[in-house]
Amino acid sequence: MAVGKASFPVMPEVAGVRLGTAMAGIKKPDRRDLVVIEIPEGASVAGTFTRNAFCAAPVVVAREHLAACAEAGQAPRYLVINTGNANAGTGETGLQDARATCERLAQLSGVAANGVLPFSTGVIGEPLPMDRLLAGLPAALEALGEGAEAWQSAGEGILTTDTRAKGASVALSLGDQTVTINGISKGSGMIQPNMATMLGFVATDAAIEQSLLETLLRETVDRSFNCITVDGDTSTNDACMLIATGRGAAVTTEEHLAVFRNGLQRVMTELAQAIIRDAEGATKFVTLQVTGATRRREALDVAFTVAHSPLVKTALYASDANWGRILAAVGRAPVNDFDVEKVTIDLGEVRLVEAGGRAQAYTEQAGSAVMAREEITIRIDLGRGDEGATVWTSDLSHDYVSINADYRS
Amino acid sequence: MAVGKASFPVMPEVAGVRLGTAMAGIKKPDRRDLVVIEIPEGASVAGTFTRNAFCAAPVVVAREHLAACAEAGQAPRYLVINTGNANAGTGETGLQDARATCERLAQLSGVAANGVLPFSTGVIGEPLPMDRLLAGLPAALEALGEGAEAWQSAGEGILTTDTRAKGASVALSLGDQTVTINGISKGSGMIQPNMATMLGFVATDAAIEQSLLETLLRETVDRSFNCITVDGDTSTNDACMLIATGRGAAVTTEEHLAVFRNGLQRVMTELAQAIIRDAEGATKFVTLQVTGATRRREALDVAFTVAHSPLVKTALYASDANWGRILAAVGRAPVNDFDVEKVTIDLGEVRLVEAGGRAQAYTEQAGSAVMAREEITIRIDLGRGDEGATVWTSDLSHDYVSINADYRS
Repeated sequence: MAVGKASFPVMPEVAGVRLGTAMAGIKKPDRRDLVVIEIPEGASVAGTFTRNAFCAAPVVVAREHLAACAEAGQAPRYLVINTGNANAGTGETGLQDARATCERLAQLSGVAANGVLPFSTGVIGEPLPMDRLLAGLPAALEALGEGAEAWQSAGEGILTTDTRAKGASVALSLGDQTVTINGISKGSGMIQPNMATMLGFVATDAAIEQSLLETLLRETVDRSFNCITVDGDTSTNDACMLIATGRGAAVTTEEHLAVFRNGLQRVMTELAQAIIRDAEGATKFVTLQVTGATRRREALDVAFTVAHSPLVKTALYASDANWGRILAAVGRAPVNDFDVEKVTIDLGEVRLVEAGGRAQAYTEQAGSAVMAREEITIRIDLGRGDEGATVWTSDLSHDYVSINADYRS
Repeated sequence: MAVGKASFPVMPEVAGVRLGTAMAGIKKPDRRDLVVIEIPEGASVAGTFTRNAFCAAPVVVAREHLAACAEAGQAPRYLVINTGNANAGTGETGLQDARATCERLAQLSGVAANGVLPFSTGVIGEPLPMDRLLAGLPAALEALGEGAEAWQSAGEGILTTDTRAKGASVALSLGDQTVTINGISKGSGMIQPNMATMLGFVATDAAIEQSLLETLLRETVDRSFNCITVDGDTSTNDACMLIATGRGAAVTTEEHLAVFRNGLQRVMTELAQAIIRDAEGATKFVTLQVTGATRRREALDVAFTVAHSPLVKTALYASDANWGRILAAVGRAPVNDFDVEKVTIDLGEVRLVEAGGRAQAYTEQAGSAVMAREEITIRIDLGRGDEGATVWTSDLSHDYVSINADYRS
């Protein structure tokens, strides 16, 4: 299941970025499961990774290589992504396999091994089928291309339980020049990215200095991928990479920065939301807006507490305006000195809760009409400050249980 | 569904404590839904309540009345419990209704209104059907009795989505005297008590001074009801009451205290575990033992992170030895400076994880054999300290989704 229509955009090229996809048969035959992304010389590249302590071998190696590149004043030249196997919980062998993948690709393409960053997603704890993976690399390099087809194939090549490829693209005017931001992402379960089995790859032709690129990545991921949750489970493999090739306009003025940040945030948010629309078993796309908090962290705590409540999620699945469950979840959020009298909760345009209980004007009919929709916004105002946060989540359906009880992910 | 056999014990009387149950038709006709517990004069009574900020009206009033009794140097004389309606999220009307219930019972029994503590469980946000509730009180008083039948009827009279009544009883020797501890509990969803829609009532004939009774309640609840979780949702109505009538032996010496504390812990743990065995949709009873932590709080954080992981819970339902999901959940627990190399994870007698990855000797066959069992223990050693904690939880099944998508609880 998934919410809304699938629509992978027709993406323009990002000059200098080439993508190649192959069928390596990592888990299943005849599906795209190996992607190589080529980054031109002179680009800036920023990355952010899972905070899971058991982070996967490719995450360890990608971090190492990224640090080595930074030390040498260079950007990585290749990203190599396999699906079907997470190479996580694989110990020393896993590290060796991740390194060997980079070495082979480096050899084939004539770059240094630490110029290659590895990424994996899929089942945890199985050894990578190295023979098939390595044998697939030449075909992926052979397929390298810049256009819409290359982006779409790459979008498909990184999927696991996802039912659809996820892409977003914007064109921005920086003065009299136009820059493009393209992005692809994957993920539908084990999702509460905290920079999760979530991967995101975003590229732009804009020229952006390295430390600014890192700041932009952190800021925009914090308000997109880090604000989505399917099941509260942060994966061992999450990563999001941002590439700026520098072949297009430079982001230098404050005004250009504002335009670029805004455009990047749109791409990141669209990619993150696409993961929720395609969340395992999802029948609803739910936006949780918390306002009136004293700190953004407090707003996030309340939003995630509601987003993770199995009782709220099953009520959403049932289209049951069971506001008591929302109220109970808000009430158990880790917030001190909660004044429940000041809290209001709205479901779409319908006020559910005020003054510590059910809103006077509330009717079951009005609540049910909102709950019947596929896209639902729940607004929670804590009435104690000026900070807020928005989190996106899915419902908990029979299909979620089926997918995760049947699939060894 | 439920795990293991239902077995409500035949309880001896606790001298002075009488229980009466009636059918008031609060939500449905022809079921026991109203219970009155009479406490003799001279008893000590301790209570612990939900920490949900949106706590229910009866919780507010029970706290008030308990405080008023303490101030007057007296113990409450009656507990009145209805099921079918939580009287939560009901604002001022809810408070009035809870107070009116106490007043009517006080009137009928000739005690002061603040000598009566109210408890409610069931649907959140509906007004209490006061006419039916008040009309049921005389029948509940009429039915007051001390023996096994009275305890069992009360155990049945406090249930909501529970499929079985839950009771535990021990007899203890304090020197040459014998004391009894009887308890009943209810709860099967919205369960992560953090004193939840969990209620527990425990009574003993031992004589225990008030402040010691409060300490004993806090200590034993912390290692029983506060260590269970079904869905991480802390209810608005949780309460656990401990009554010591003082008609039997006095707990005075260190030795007697040790015997009594141990006995009380057994009753509390058995009642808490009974809630998990009867958890909504449960097909597994899972014990999470975390050791090697630097603090008990750290061990609890790891245990609850695993216990709340929908991916771990669906794998348990599927009897799938998907140890990667356990590893991923441990890795995202809120623990600083995690050394994954030192972590070991055992499933029953089978080592799953060591040295940051799958244990050398592990076989899928061995893991699957343990997962096929109805009762499963997962041991997680963090390898960084001497503290530990044990948490009990259930799996996430299709029935959990059905129960909570179909039932307005």
